Amino acid sequence: MSTPDQPNFSGWMCPLPLRNYPTIVMGHGSGGKMMSDLIGHLFAPALGNDLLGQMADSTVLPLADGSRLAFSTDSFVISPLVFPGGDIGELAVYGTVNDIAMSGAKPLFLSAGFILEEGLPMDLLGQLVESFGRACRTAGVQLVAGDTKVVNRGHGDGLYINTSGIGLIPPGVQIGPDRARPGDAVLVSGTLGDHGMAIMSVREGLAFESPIVSDSAPLNGMVDAMLAVTTEIHCLRDATRGGLAAVLNELAVASRVGVEFDERKVPVQPAVQAACEMLGLDPLYVANEGKLVAFVPEAHAEAVLDAMHANPYGTNAARIGTVVETHPGLVVARTGIGGSRVVDLPAGELLPRIC
Amino acid sequence: MSTPDQPNFSGWMCPLPLRNYPTIVMGHGSGGKMMSDLIGHLFAPALGNDLLGQMADSTVLPLADGSRLAFSTDSFVISPLVFPGGDIGELAVYGTVNDIAMSGAKPLFLSAGFILEEGLPMDLLGQLVESFGRACRTAGVQLVAGDTKVVNRGHGDGLYINTSGIGLIPPGVQIGPDRARPGDAVLVSGTLGDHGMAIMSVREGLAFESPIVSDSAPLNGMVDAMLAVTTEIHCLRDATRGGLAAVLNELAVASRVGVEFDERKVPVQPAVQAACEMLGLDPLYVANEGKLVAFVPEAHAEAVLDAMHANPYGTNAARIGTVVETHPGLVVARTGIGGSRVVDLPAGELLPRIC
Repeated sequence: MSTPDQPNFSGWMCPLPLRNYPTIVMGHGSGGKMMSDLIGHLFAPALGNDLLGQMADSTVLPLADGSRLAFSTDSFVISPLVFPGGDIGELAVYGTVNDIAMSGAKPLFLSAGFILEEGLPMDLLGQLVESFGRACRTAGVQLVAGDTKVVNRGHGDGLYINTSGIGLIPPGVQIGPDRARPGDAVLVSGTLGDHGMAIMSVREGLAFESPIVSDSAPLNGMVDAMLAVTTEIHCLRDATRGGLAAVLNELAVASRVGVEFDERKVPVQPAVQAACEMLGLDPLYVANEGKLVAFVPEAHAEAVLDAMHANPYGTNAARIGTVVETHPGLVVARTGIGGSRVVDLPAGELLPRIC
Repeated sequence: MSTPDQPNFSGWMCPLPLRNYPTIVMGHGSGGKMMSDLIGHLFAPALGNDLLGQMADSTVLPLADGSRLAFSTDSFVISPLVFPGGDIGELAVYGTVNDIAMSGAKPLFLSAGFILEEGLPMDLLGQLVESFGRACRTAGVQLVAGDTKVVNRGHGDGLYINTSGIGLIPPGVQIGPDRARPGDAVLVSGTLGDHGMAIMSVREGLAFESPIVSDSAPLNGMVDAMLAVTTEIHCLRDATRGGLAAVLNELAVASRVGVEFDERKVPVQPAVQAACEMLGLDPLYVANEGKLVAFVPEAHAEAVLDAMHANPYGTNAARIGTVVETHPGLVVARTGIGGSRVVDLPAGELLPRIC
């Protein structure tokens, strides 16, 4: 604990620039400013190119015949491996399926790289691999390439999984982080913060009247239904690391627009709200694994929202705000007490190892 | 050390079936029988499908328009991160580029998932990421999708990298592990065992007159040159985990043919041979990261070998044997002293964490 006399600099957030870190710290992996600095200052100069520069959940690859692939990769290092509402096997499938779907693509093929730690119980591995297979069937994708490595005891955490995925983008669909336009409605597909708080409640040993379970789910079916209403959806993003706050900030910056939303309209389950208050966390910054954010032209907003409501993973979908021309790059929330506040990109470490 | 009175069961190889292992052990990741059992008995029942069942270095995905993609994934967990002749950044690019090339495809796009361990020095990460970028340019591929995760100190090994890759297979090319035919010439692209022994010499602190360096290299240019001679190449495989012995066995089983080769014709550098003898290892089982094995119809064998010789990574290419109709599934080596021996799939652990 810190006191006014003894400031505690080992806290969860630290907005210092990259050059002040001689080594990697947990905050570099948490979807906030520190990760953005690491990518911008270390990875991008060495690896950058126009395609990587799309900075979307998945990258659109134009093929010679005019068709377009969506391609995405994600590593899953979640601890614990099994959590309320899901496990790492299922999460590794849905995480990449959702990233592919956020380009408006139909996810088709997955690869999986399993990094096993010596000592991992064989029956736990069997259970997680079965869960992976079940999730593939649920999401309608095929695992087509795999790799297995084993690392020494004490050099892993039981199991890490990387999945990469390929999808096909239907003709006419043009979704991208830079395509938001003033006037677009800002929609979310359901309650926020469920996944992060489910993990947190296990780690902290918290018990609630109704247990909090992860929202881990495949969103490709919902995206299909939304695109059946109109192909004119401007932005789609799943609100994982960094939560809703990170997504809105990234889209506002990429599209050079402002975003305004009403905090009271953001759906949050009472148990999640209570857990956040107890731990001093803001549900806007907590990770989700089955929720998307959509920016949709006003003319189609109601019909798209109806399509989301009709999907089993979208029953709590809501319109929370609007894209504005003023304050480009800034996200502003109207608060319950009639004021407003800037909702910034999270700085560093909020909840580590949640995906 | 073991003595006749105290047998040491913690040795490197152990051919017991999967059911005797209640947990994962290092041998499950070493490209031999134990890994094959793990994949066959645990992964395949949960995840198997026709496409995954191709069991090639990369999977061929037919698209609606008749074009064919090659897709592959590989995780790199090598220790140490920097080794004589290469580093994990370069290896992660060439490893997947080569897997794609082994379908005869032109590698185009890569994804990369970086799992960073808390405490990894920032300047070492910078060096490895730059090496990754340089290798992409050398191999002519673009990194188009990335992901970064951070795990707690003591739960990684500095850096693990997963790469997945997409390539395009030229029309007319039909390469697959089940396409070997009796009479095919068996070609290798150069000296064997360099990579594994380079890693081993660092780990064991061995010093040789001429230091052993890894053969880590991109092989897509050589494959292009070979396919320019003839598209009628039957099998291609890079001889990584399990070495030449594993490749020949896998192809013999998949094609239901026998393989015979002359041990004296297998190119091995004198320093590698000496190191292997010192450590009691067989270079046929040691991993390579820049060597391929090709099964080519007799009529084209000399011309394809000439094309390999003309490539900078193929100057020591050699014809070592022939595919035969007898003893399907078996690999037989003619030895220096006029006899012959069966060269079996390696059982378990030979050299862990070499890729």
